[in-house]
Amino acid sequence: MKKIGILGGGQLGRMLLQAAANYPVETHVMESDPECPSAHLCHHFTLADIRDYEALVNFGKQLDAITIEIENVNTDALETLASAGVTVIPNPSALRILQDKILQKQFYRAHEIHSSEFVVTSGREDIYRHKDLLPAAHKLAKGGYDGRGVQMIRTEEDISKGFNEPSVLEKAVEINKEISVIIGMASDGSYKIFPPVEMIFDPELNLVSFQLSPARITEKLRLEAETLALKTVKSLRSPGIFAVECFIDNHDNITVNETAPRVHNSGHQTIESCYSSQFDMLWRILLELPLGNTSLIRPAGMVNIVGAKGHSGPVRYEGIEKVLSMNNSFLHLYGKQETRPGRKMGHVCILGEDVHSISDQCREIQSVLHAKT
Amino acid sequence: MKKIGILGGGQLGRMLLQAAANYPVETHVMESDPECPSAHLCHHFTLADIRDYEALVNFGKQLDAITIEIENVNTDALETLASAGVTVIPNPSALRILQDKILQKQFYRAHEIHSSEFVVTSGREDIYRHKDLLPAAHKLAKGGYDGRGVQMIRTEEDISKGFNEPSVLEKAVEINKEISVIIGMASDGSYKIFPPVEMIFDPELNLVSFQLSPARITEKLRLEAETLALKTVKSLRSPGIFAVECFIDNHDNITVNETAPRVHNSGHQTIESCYSSQFDMLWRILLELPLGNTSLIRPAGMVNIVGAKGHSGPVRYEGIEKVLSMNNSFLHLYGKQETRPGRKMGHVCILGEDVHSISDQCREIQSVLHAKT
Repeated sequence: MKKIGILGGGQLGRMLLQAAANYPVETHVMESDPECPSAHLCHHFTLADIRDYEALVNFGKQLDAITIEIENVNTDALETLASAGVTVIPNPSALRILQDKILQKQFYRAHEIHSSEFVVTSGREDIYRHKDLLPAAHKLAKGGYDGRGVQMIRTEEDISKGFNEPSVLEKAVEINKEISVIIGMASDGSYKIFPPVEMIFDPELNLVSFQLSPARITEKLRLEAETLALKTVKSLRSPGIFAVECFIDNHDNITVNETAPRVHNSGHQTIESCYSSQFDMLWRILLELPLGNTSLIRPAGMVNIVGAKGHSGPVRYEGIEKVLSMNNSFLHLYGKQETRPGRKMGHVCILGEDVHSISDQCREIQSVLHAKT
Repeated sequence: MKKIGILGGGQLGRMLLQAAANYPVETHVMESDPECPSAHLCHHFTLADIRDYEALVNFGKQLDAITIEIENVNTDALETLASAGVTVIPNPSALRILQDKILQKQFYRAHEIHSSEFVVTSGREDIYRHKDLLPAAHKLAKGGYDGRGVQMIRTEEDISKGFNEPSVLEKAVEINKEISVIIGMASDGSYKIFPPVEMIFDPELNLVSFQLSPARITEKLRLEAETLALKTVKSLRSPGIFAVECFIDNHDNITVNETAPRVHNSGHQTIESCYSSQFDMLWRILLELPLGNTSLIRPAGMVNIVGAKGHSGPVRYEGIEKVLSMNNSFLHLYGKQETRPGRKMGHVCILGEDVHSISDQCREIQSVLHAKT
């Protein structure tokens, strides 16, 4: 059996490991939290920091291949491992670009991938020289995650909230819809595109509150989005799973917002709604097996279960019985013992006949299901 | 989180653990093979023999609930644990009946559950006194599994192949079809019935070669089969997952062949074809959550991958690429390192539009996919 490592042990790792059990693979996880969602589901768990060069090289040198479930890993270590013959997916150079929002925006520009106007800022004072870009999103170059590291700068008054570290200032796009296109890219250049997903955001937490698959967009827009996402992924020249998050404005212009070189929150519903899920697909890529079928079995919705405001501590789920009594729901809890506001604790997928009724049901689930203390 | 134990660590345990990761549960597995398919997928693995009274009591007394994935466990130990307040599912008295083929047949008779004529034999010489039952199946009271412990006695010449231990001799039924009805029974008496599955057997290995869901039977027969299965399960007075295997003869008479008080090979396709799989359903029962929806999302087929004849040793799979290239296939390998003739190494589920085309595809999978050395 091939030995394959996952860097990071969160919920994405957990779902990868659930899928791994269908394949002939020995799984290794490296993560600094011994109570993480993946710790008990792998063959070998290594307690170490994925940002630690030496620990990562030691972890990886025993493996046939290595992948990530979170971006902030030590890319130098991955380069060392790649040189030593370990298959690294995504490859370190693609990862290096995507884990730095400055490099990522410069990459879009260099490859003529439609993305919003931006400038690089080294501190918040720089924003004053680019007031013409406002309203804009100020994004930390490194370390942002799950809505952290992003600050909306709507007017001059907001500039004081900007970051004082290397960041990008991105001109805000008038957003009509946010979608995500996930692509599975094999080492031999073959690829599969998952149906575009429509994300409905919670404006307070800057987290997806629910999402719909397929996205409610025209066939023309779907093809444009898929073409843009594919161009992005091909330009990265790396195998792996890539989630290309896009904005659609009121004039149907599509721009790439961000790309993640890993399985992604926007693909959770693929577990039930597609023949091959994003997790299944990544194992096929890692094991060099034929890519799976991304067709929809049924339209789907997905609701993130995030920690309720004002609740920090051991988690208690309210409304689970109600959700499990729905005849088309699939509950996924991530095994996290502690909740805190906005923390991703689980998700619910629902399968339905059309995205309109699914949308209503997603809102209903949001209103009954709560992660509290 | 509730602590729940599984006795046995084979592929059924493995698939239970894949499903467990969706629920708030701490999983414990007890099994004597450290390389078993479940060993790395649980929170806590205990290396011990499930037939060992003391080991089982020690394992179970720390748990909130305990279940099985194979029948041959120490029932005395389970009774001790039940008395001590551990939830045992299925309950020990139901398990005691079903793990002994003599008690099982006597149970069917006592509860007027339609099953074939039988006599109890203490040795093969007894068969001579019951030649009127021939052709018949001679079944060891205890220890039979996966086609072992069953001997067809067609004529007087075959009697010498009969067992010399306590057994039942069951008059052969003229079999037109074999079906299985899986029922999830909750502790509060609520239940859900999975769509009857049709099993197509390999006459040589006495193993299911593939199965179809739903079974190709009339609506009237389906209702009769479900009624018979439900009567069987209700008579056992135990929560759990029960697979009631039935014969349908050429006159559409249905008889119960055997009942298993656990997740079952005949329910593998429920992972993809039903909203709630048999594995998902057992967690709902163990955690006292609402039962799931057993409706079919799509009709399905399931092919067991069994070790090829003449091959014993480290396994190598032939034809995996071909199967994974099918646009409706779901591969499940069980992580067993060694193959031997007839050993269950994995399975393939396929989803389709109708059972006829699914049936053809199952035969195709059987012809291309092989577990060899």
